[in-house]
Amino acid sequence: MSDSARMTLPFEKPGAKHDLEEGTRFTPRFDSDGLIGCITLDANDGAILMFAFMNEEALRLTLETGIAHYWSRSRQSLWRKGDTSGQTQTVVEIRTDCDQDVLVLKVNPGGDGGACHTGRRSCFYRQVVTDAQGVHLVIDDA
Amino acid sequence: MSDSARMTLPFEKPGAKHDLEEGTRFTPRFDSDGLIGCITLDANDGAILMFAFMNEEALRLTLETGIAHYWSRSRQSLWRKGDTSGQTQTVVEIRTDCDQDVLVLKVNPGGDGGACHTGRRSCFYRQVVTDAQGVHLVIDDA
Repeated sequence: MSDSARMTLPFEKPGAKHDLEEGTRFTPRFDSDGLIGCITLDANDGAILMFAFMNEEALRLTLETGIAHYWSRSRQSLWRKGDTSGQTQTVVEIRTDCDQDVLVLKVNPGGDGGACHTGRRSCFYRQVVTDAQGVHLVIDDA
Repeated sequence: MSDSARMTLPFEKPGAKHDLEEGTRFTPRFDSDGLIGCITLDANDGAILMFAFMNEEALRLTLETGIAHYWSRSRQSLWRKGDTSGQTQTVVEIRTDCDQDVLVLKVNPGGDGGACHTGRRSCFYRQVVTDAQGVHLVIDDA
């Protein structure tokens, strides 16, 4: 996809509300830090693996290569998922929401199929539970 | 759940890395604007309905009432989903991620079952497609 992806980059500026919500122009809205949130799902079963951010370059590289790239806020650096862990994510589908300020990536996870740096498949391995002890977390990574 | 939820509010401060990632204390990390991102799923089939933000009060009210509350950045106000649209969201499960700065809500959507202000079930009704015309959006809200 690289040649045609490059044709329209850098990304166009967002238009008015109707164009943004109903149009066919992809005009991602980066926040004041230049980032857009990204929800990453396993394309095989739709499970939520992780939530991370992309800057413009990470999104451009993701579109051009078909491999998920993110922006690490803690390290302040571009991050091709899997370079260290082997958990490379091959993109199957990308979606955006009504106001184009969030992305959903459906991916085929490589390596051991995990996404979380703790070694688990998904970052969302804990439930928030309210009971007689108050509000606390219960690990549930089945 | 209201009495026990109130027992531990306001939320405790995040601890060190191991406690944050492996512990059972719920210590949500709000960003510099006092917000935490929330991915909302339909509990019936796991479909992603929307992405929105909560401030501390919205999260507290969600825990206390079992009904999803959010913070509207555009209106700068607390927002009980469904007050206008009838699309009230009854919370079935809440999860958080490894570093406790994102939430996943699984909900039973009320009203017509929709979540998006455009009238659609999900806000993620468009695919980002790359082809000979470049990168553009295709509506796919089946």
